[in-house]
Amino acid sequence: MLDEMFKKAKEASYVLMSINTDIKDKALASIAEKLDKCRDEIKRVNDKDIKYAKQNNLSDAMIDRLLLDDKTIDGMIKAVNDIKAQVDPVGKVVDGFKRPNGLYITKVKVPLGVVGIIFESRPNVTIDAAALCLKSGNVSVLRGGKEAVHSNTYLGKLMKEAVSEAGLPEACVNIIEDTDRAVVMEMLKAKEHIDIMVPRGGKGLIDFCTEHSLIPLVKHDDGICHVFIDEHANIDMAAAIAVNAKCQRPGVCNAMETLLVHQSVAQKILPKLVSEYAKYDVELRGCERTAKIIKCKDATEEDWKTEYLDYILSIKIVSDISEAIEHINKYGSKHSESIVTENYTNSEMFLNMVDAAAVYVNASTRWTDGGEFGMGAEIGISTQKLHCRGPMGADDLTTTKYRVYGQGQIK
Amino acid sequence: MLDEMFKKAKEASYVLMSINTDIKDKALASIAEKLDKCRDEIKRVNDKDIKYAKQNNLSDAMIDRLLLDDKTIDGMIKAVNDIKAQVDPVGKVVDGFKRPNGLYITKVKVPLGVVGIIFESRPNVTIDAAALCLKSGNVSVLRGGKEAVHSNTYLGKLMKEAVSEAGLPEACVNIIEDTDRAVVMEMLKAKEHIDIMVPRGGKGLIDFCTEHSLIPLVKHDDGICHVFIDEHANIDMAAAIAVNAKCQRPGVCNAMETLLVHQSVAQKILPKLVSEYAKYDVELRGCERTAKIIKCKDATEEDWKTEYLDYILSIKIVSDISEAIEHINKYGSKHSESIVTENYTNSEMFLNMVDAAAVYVNASTRWTDGGEFGMGAEIGISTQKLHCRGPMGADDLTTTKYRVYGQGQIK
Repeated sequence: MLDEMFKKAKEASYVLMSINTDIKDKALASIAEKLDKCRDEIKRVNDKDIKYAKQNNLSDAMIDRLLLDDKTIDGMIKAVNDIKAQVDPVGKVVDGFKRPNGLYITKVKVPLGVVGIIFESRPNVTIDAAALCLKSGNVSVLRGGKEAVHSNTYLGKLMKEAVSEAGLPEACVNIIEDTDRAVVMEMLKAKEHIDIMVPRGGKGLIDFCTEHSLIPLVKHDDGICHVFIDEHANIDMAAAIAVNAKCQRPGVCNAMETLLVHQSVAQKILPKLVSEYAKYDVELRGCERTAKIIKCKDATEEDWKTEYLDYILSIKIVSDISEAIEHINKYGSKHSESIVTENYTNSEMFLNMVDAAAVYVNASTRWTDGGEFGMGAEIGISTQKLHCRGPMGADDLTTTKYRVYGQGQIK
Repeated sequence: MLDEMFKKAKEASYVLMSINTDIKDKALASIAEKLDKCRDEIKRVNDKDIKYAKQNNLSDAMIDRLLLDDKTIDGMIKAVNDIKAQVDPVGKVVDGFKRPNGLYITKVKVPLGVVGIIFESRPNVTIDAAALCLKSGNVSVLRGGKEAVHSNTYLGKLMKEAVSEAGLPEACVNIIEDTDRAVVMEMLKAKEHIDIMVPRGGKGLIDFCTEHSLIPLVKHDDGICHVFIDEHANIDMAAAIAVNAKCQRPGVCNAMETLLVHQSVAQKILPKLVSEYAKYDVELRGCERTAKIIKCKDATEEDWKTEYLDYILSIKIVSDISEAIEHINKYGSKHSESIVTENYTNSEMFLNMVDAAAVYVNASTRWTDGGEFGMGAEIGISTQKLHCRGPMGADDLTTTKYRVYGQGQIK
């Protein structure tokens, strides 16, 4: 069954690969229209998922993420229109030259082919991911969480109608309704038909995919992000950033998990932070030196390695910037890292020596995001070094092809 | 033991990551000097590998690939100097912008970190790979074939001395002397310390790595390449390309394995090719229609999927260009594909619709090569779509990092 879907997806990818931007944009416009026209039906279907969630005692936060109301539907429509408005990455000539033997070579961006995406409960991801794939000429095979299966299936049906009306094969968008874990395994082995897999989710899912995939992965993994308050920091700015990075939305990957503080400013800033964090009920876990200054639980080795995704913060006092950089390179997940300092040399040292997708001076780690980086919607934030690193937009959903024009050259 | 090597490699990668070009170039110059100064010792050590190869009745072709004489040593020195002369890819700003909130963001090329490379017998690959990694700021962990272990170990010792004299940690270059298959498994699991793995070799090795690796791979896989002789081909040019692509060096990945011929020119060109191929003793395996025109063995479904790497050619007559493109997209390994035609529309259709790393009009597939494409030495030819596709040079041994300059921005 799935095998048949994957095969048709691959066939459709050859159509989508050589189609012009106007047809892809027509399909995107049609998706946006249908989302608007079918609001009532979307809400009706979504209600099934919400009821199921309530029956199964899912948390309020989870139910909130599942909900499709007029506001979230407006958001989905805006995302599709924003993606439509982007420049088509396909066909961009990224390099080119004439060789001494007369071969004229261009290196051109082309679609990847079939992109498999595994994600969790938010049904708006279904729209974002399919639209980004469509814009970049890729067929999407989407497998969302079981909590959102009714919503995802219906959104998939709308998108299939839209691409079909634009003259494209229905198989350009595919929703897997079966939410069994075995399906993930089947996707990971379908190397004949799926070109890349993008798993978005918790550590369990990522590890499972890493272990079993026969298909190249772009992982969207955990974020163990740090803010380092340097001895030369502006203390007010440092406090604002440290509070924002932890508390503005602790459940996301670019939130701070560990705060590093230079020993010479610890006395000054930590008590100030304690009262700020108290407003959000943040649980503090400090190193030995921290515990001498403020009241906190003892941080263990395990804390430095943990992505809390919650109102919990580990704090470590370091002797100098080198110790901070070393700690980050050892325990960080290479996502987003920030230094607060007024010292030029320290800022450059941090930017150069910290190994992460995004390194900041004097700003919150919370900015690492496709929208904030100006690439419209994102398919996720890559925590790996291969292919793309950081927010992954339509541009990263391409590979390249060398087009070589000869006049009979033989070697 | 290996664990200790990998750990030191990772530590060294943080040093190499923030070093300037002049120091890396100094190390490369020192490698070139040492290769020249230690010629006699290189040949003496290489002789052990040659003797072992002869005792074990390895083929003449294999022994030829193992041999390090003055000519091959000159080649290695030239490769190192060419790599040294290249532009350092590290630090190149590939994108940059100021966001509405005032964040100034640059996207910069940075080294990958630690690159693990598994390759087969040719000891010059040891030098090429380590030098390319060094130029691009990466630590290399090299595991060559057991046939070349004495040569590789000695070359590794020379390189370690060279990087050390340039002031870099010895651990910037690492040679694994243990050639047991278990070592490959150990590398593939060392995800804490190795950032990417580059397996170069036969299908067995690639499949093994795909199945077991926890580390992202850049694969250098098989080449099932085609030449399609269109109905509008210049017949003399077509014959020259078809012979060159098969016979100039059949044992390499960019050699042609299947020839596709348009039905309307088959009568004219196939008999001509038979006499050309006879000069090289090429075994011909044709489809039913081919067998009606020339004397050949019957090609089976299996032939279309086979990389012979030998003087064997499968031939298929197609009804039109669409059938040719379909055949290539179905059976090709997405490496190098060529059409011979004088028809503009057909040339564009082929370039657009064939899914491969390099697509050619009127040239031999044999040109797909880092040197021929102007990138100096190559670490291999990537047959995957993720990260890089086609010849992989120093430029592809990098990832990117966003450097974000703020003034206290919080979200």
